[in-house]
Amino acid sequence: MGVMVINEHNFSGKPVRYYFDADFAQLEQIVPKEQSILLTDEHVYTLHRQRFTGWRTIVIPAGEQHKQQSTIDTIIRQLIEQEADRKSILIGIGGGVVTDMAGYAASIYMRGISFGFVPTSILAMVDAAIGGKNGVDVGVYKNLAGTIRQPDFLFYDYSFLQTLPQAEWVNGFAEVIKHACIKDRGLFELLQQHTIGTLQNNPALLHEMIERNAAIKTAVVLNDERETGERRLLNFGHTLGHAIENLYALPHGHAVSIGMAAACTISEEIAGFASAEKQAVLELLQQYGLPVSFGYDKAKAFDLLKMDKKRERDAVHYILLKQTGEAFIQPIGLTQLQDLFVQVL
Amino acid sequence: MGVMVINEHNFSGKPVRYYFDADFAQLEQIVPKEQSILLTDEHVYTLHRQRFTGWRTIVIPAGEQHKQQSTIDTIIRQLIEQEADRKSILIGIGGGVVTDMAGYAASIYMRGISFGFVPTSILAMVDAAIGGKNGVDVGVYKNLAGTIRQPDFLFYDYSFLQTLPQAEWVNGFAEVIKHACIKDRGLFELLQQHTIGTLQNNPALLHEMIERNAAIKTAVVLNDERETGERRLLNFGHTLGHAIENLYALPHGHAVSIGMAAACTISEEIAGFASAEKQAVLELLQQYGLPVSFGYDKAKAFDLLKMDKKRERDAVHYILLKQTGEAFIQPIGLTQLQDLFVQVL
Repeated sequence: MGVMVINEHNFSGKPVRYYFDADFAQLEQIVPKEQSILLTDEHVYTLHRQRFTGWRTIVIPAGEQHKQQSTIDTIIRQLIEQEADRKSILIGIGGGVVTDMAGYAASIYMRGISFGFVPTSILAMVDAAIGGKNGVDVGVYKNLAGTIRQPDFLFYDYSFLQTLPQAEWVNGFAEVIKHACIKDRGLFELLQQHTIGTLQNNPALLHEMIERNAAIKTAVVLNDERETGERRLLNFGHTLGHAIENLYALPHGHAVSIGMAAACTISEEIAGFASAEKQAVLELLQQYGLPVSFGYDKAKAFDLLKMDKKRERDAVHYILLKQTGEAFIQPIGLTQLQDLFVQVL
Repeated sequence: MGVMVINEHNFSGKPVRYYFDADFAQLEQIVPKEQSILLTDEHVYTLHRQRFTGWRTIVIPAGEQHKQQSTIDTIIRQLIEQEADRKSILIGIGGGVVTDMAGYAASIYMRGISFGFVPTSILAMVDAAIGGKNGVDVGVYKNLAGTIRQPDFLFYDYSFLQTLPQAEWVNGFAEVIKHACIKDRGLFELLQQHTIGTLQNNPALLHEMIERNAAIKTAVVLNDERETGERRLLNFGHTLGHAIENLYALPHGHAVSIGMAAACTISEEIAGFASAEKQAVLELLQQYGLPVSFGYDKAKAFDLLKMDKKRERDAVHYILLKQTGEAFIQPIGLTQLQDLFVQVL
């Protein structure tokens, strides 16, 4: 364990503390144990049971299929049973599903209590736990209900990654590659020189890469917390991705990877994105174990995509690439988008 | 119909427009009809069906017993069916139950869309629709889940009061008397000179009184939107009131009235509130058709009260009166409060 590194960023005037390279045992130094309630899922709890000793803990079933209001209802009932009050702090310990639901439950319980996150997956560390978006799916509609509210802190203990299943490493790198595509050509080139395996064997580089990605996400959100502009760039790959993810119960990273490949094709078709660059993106995705195509039902996916939060009236704000490391927002009319679906995807 | 009066107040930098003395027909002048979705309950819809012609409308069952997450789930599903997007505006038309749920559904749908209110009851006009608190009950726990988020506008069409049931007039005046007790001795004296009947026969005075009460609530909330101090004064009568309301399915105004009577007794007991002033409050409540005592199960009520949002650790922040028109916050330890329940209530 290294020395815990603390950064602080102000979102809408609210400070969010980032504890990098921390050890779970230090958690009780930053939150009063008697006011805290931990929220985790069965996977994390089973693998790390001893870490929860002495903490009040709510354990929810694992998996995206449980990211629904019914699970929030259960969490709320358990908070009532624990006699949680307005001064209680809810701490979500897990991947993106856990942090999304912990943030949401804390945002509505008694009209909002404090919360913090201990992200345990690559995906949560570089993306999901950062930026204050929380919520649940409504049936197949991804993240349709939720709020935007910032945690008090993010607490990174990299040792959780030792028990992360290989499939979740792959999922996490979809968002890392996304950051590279939209914001950081240097990161893209660094990723080209590695694989998940070589990064797992080089913890120092891995941790540095996680912090670099956390910084990318944080900077974008700081510029545009309410997602009126730049933050939309983070939706690269997510428009089609969200449409097919729950329809086919795909892993989030796989769905986003297929969505990024499709967005590259649309970028090539209507935004002059170079064919060689598109090819490089597809190769990098595959180098990290991610799929770039999938035989989905285009009509069904398009129907779902129309309900995407990025739609405004008759246009979807699609995220495209000008070049690797530089994304932009392109409103595409529903009719044109349907044509693109039929003709080029 | 008079000339519509427009005020604007800034909550946390967000402007909220107040349209007083307006006519429902003018609603389409302030919101684009095609972006708007109205939300109302079966009572209001049945009584005013013709007013909803040409507007997309969601109708929910009427009554506090439906102020639960399951109704929110239904509203969310209907918003999806209507293909509501981030630019849609949800307009709650009804009493406090409707405005609380409209505000909540709008605050979580796609992580927050715009909303406005057309309060149709005295209670909603003077209290519930103002200040941004929204949410639902969780079983017997009042308003346990929700957010604080301000509407874009409040639209007052007093003609809705013509169809308001007499029992709802009584409910509304509980909050009017509350405002008088905590903030406005002049209003208290004015109320002493009237009854619900005389006010119903004097619309000009009634409307002036509604606007005076809206101004009291607005001023308190503007000073303390997140309820860290002064806003708590508005909970006068609500600590015991909330505990017994759902336990015995009492009308909100009745529960609050019983709670105010109890708070007056506690004020007399531990805060030197004059016996004659307490007597005047009890008489005024009865003059407006409100109960001042009720044979509730004290142990059960106390158990529920411990879960009140105003509890912090082992103390409840009780609202007491120094004198009529002047309230203050008194933290009372749970043990002392239990003694007071047993001995003086």
